[in-house]
Amino acid sequence: MKPVFFFSESIAVRLQTGPDIGNITPEISQCVRASKIGIGSLCATMIGSTGSLTTIEFEPGVVEDLKQAITRLASPDLEYEHEKAWHDGNGHSHVQAALLGPSIALPIRDGQLKLGTWQQVVAINHDNQPRTRTIEVTITGTLR
Amino acid sequence: MKPVFFFSESIAVRLQTGPDIGNITPEISQCVRASKIGIGSLCATMIGSTGSLTTIEFEPGVVEDLKQAITRLASPDLEYEHEKAWHDGNGHSHVQAALLGPSIALPIRDGQLKLGTWQQVVAINHDNQPRTRTIEVTITGTLR
Amino acid sequence: MKPVFFFSESIAVRLQTGPDIGNITPEISQCVRASKIGIGSLCATMIGSTGSLTTIEFEPGVVEDLKQAITRLASPDLEYEHEKAWHDGNGHSHVQAALLGPSIALPIRDGQLKLGTWQQVVAINHDNQPRTRTIEVTITGTLR
Repeated sequence: MKPVFFFSESIAVRLQTGPDIGNITPEISQCVRASKIGIGSLCATMIGSTGSLTTIEFEPGVVEDLKQAITRLASPDLEYEHEKAWHDGNGHSHVQAALLGPSIALPIRDGQLKLGTWQQVVAINHDNQPRTRTIEVTITGTLR
Repeated sequence: MKPVFFFSESIAVRLQTGPDIGNITPEISQCVRASKIGIGSLCATMIGSTGSLTTIEFEPGVVEDLKQAITRLASPDLEYEHEKAWHDGNGHSHVQAALLGPSIALPIRDGQLKLGTWQQVVAINHDNQPRTRTIEVTITGTLR
Repeated sequence: MKPVFFFSESIAVRLQTGPDIGNITPEISQCVRASKIGIGSLCATMIGSTGSLTTIEFEPGVVEDLKQAITRLASPDLEYEHEKAWHDGNGHSHVQAALLGPSIALPIRDGQLKLGTWQQVVAINHDNQPRTRTIEVTITGTLR
C-alpha cells in the first residue's frame, strides 16, 4: 500500500446578497491538481454561519430554482428571534445555511475530482449583504 | 501510532423514478470489510446532480414519509426555470438533490461501520426516471 | 511531506425533547487538542436516525429560529406512515433528521478547529423524548 499524504488550501469567492450561488469547481479542481494526490477524498467546509456548500448542475435555470427553494425554506418575510436581539436583518440567512449544511466530501480519482457530467460544486452566500466567503479544503490520499 | 491507509470503491445501485430511496448499507459494509481498515472514516459521494445520500431507519413507513417530505421541499407541480430551458421535466429533482446534499461521512470502529441500531445508509434518486446511481466510497484509517 | 495520523473519539451529549439543539464545539475542540493533530480534517457523525449535526451561530435567537424551521420541514402535526406501524410518535423526528443529515466535515488548522467567529458545531435531537446522543469523531492529519 502507498503512504497517505494530505494537502490543505483556502479558497475565497465573492458572492452577492443571498441567496447567491457561485460555481467553485475550478478553484476546487485547482486544489486537487496542486495536491498531486491521485486517489483520495476531499473535504470542503464553508467558514461562517451564513454560508453553505452543495453540488448542482450549474446552469441559470437550476440556480434560480434553488434560490427560490432556499427562500421557501426560510423566507426573509417571516419573523425571526435573531432579529429581535440583533437587528441585523439576517435571521433567515442563519436558518437557511444551517439546513443546507457547511460541508461536503468529494472523491478524487485519477488525479481529478470525480463528479457527474453535469455536477458542479457550489458555494452559497445566504447573508443579507455581499460577502467574500472562505472555503477550507483538505485533501487526503495517495500521490499520483 | 499505526500508519494510515486508504481504500476506494465504486457502488452502483438501481433506483426507480424519484424520489426513490434504496438501502446501500450492505454495499457500504462490504467496502469496509474489503478495506481491512479497523478504525477510520468513510466518505461516500453520490455522482450526479439528481441524487443524494443520507441515513434513515430503513422501514417502509419512514421511507414513505421521507418521500413525501422531499416532495414538499420541491414539488414537481411548481414551475421551474430549468424546465423552461431544458424541458426534461426534472427541475424539482435538481433542487431536491441540492438541498439534501451529495455526501456523508461515517465512522469505522472495530472493522465495522458504526451506525445506530436502526440507522441505515440510503441513496436517493430524485430524477424523473429510473437511474442506476453510482456512489464513490473512500475509506481512510488504520488496518485492523 | 509529513506522515498522516489519525485519532478517534466518542462524544456524548444530553439533549431535551426535539428539536433540541446543543453546542458541542467545546467537546469537539477537546478532541482536536487531544489528537495533537496540527493540520487536517475532522469528520463527525451523529449515531442514530433521529439526530443530526450542523453549524450555527449558537445564540438563543438563532436556536429558536432553527427549531421553528425544522418543525416546518416535518411538523409533528402531519400524518406519518411510520406512526401507523410503530406508534412511537416520532415519525417527524426521522424525517427531520434525514433532511438535515448525520455528518459534517470540519478543517483543522494550526492545531485548532477552524470555524467562523460566530460559527459553532451543534448536535440536534429530533426525537420525541430526551436523549443522550452519541457523536463519533474521526480526525486525520499531520501532527503539530
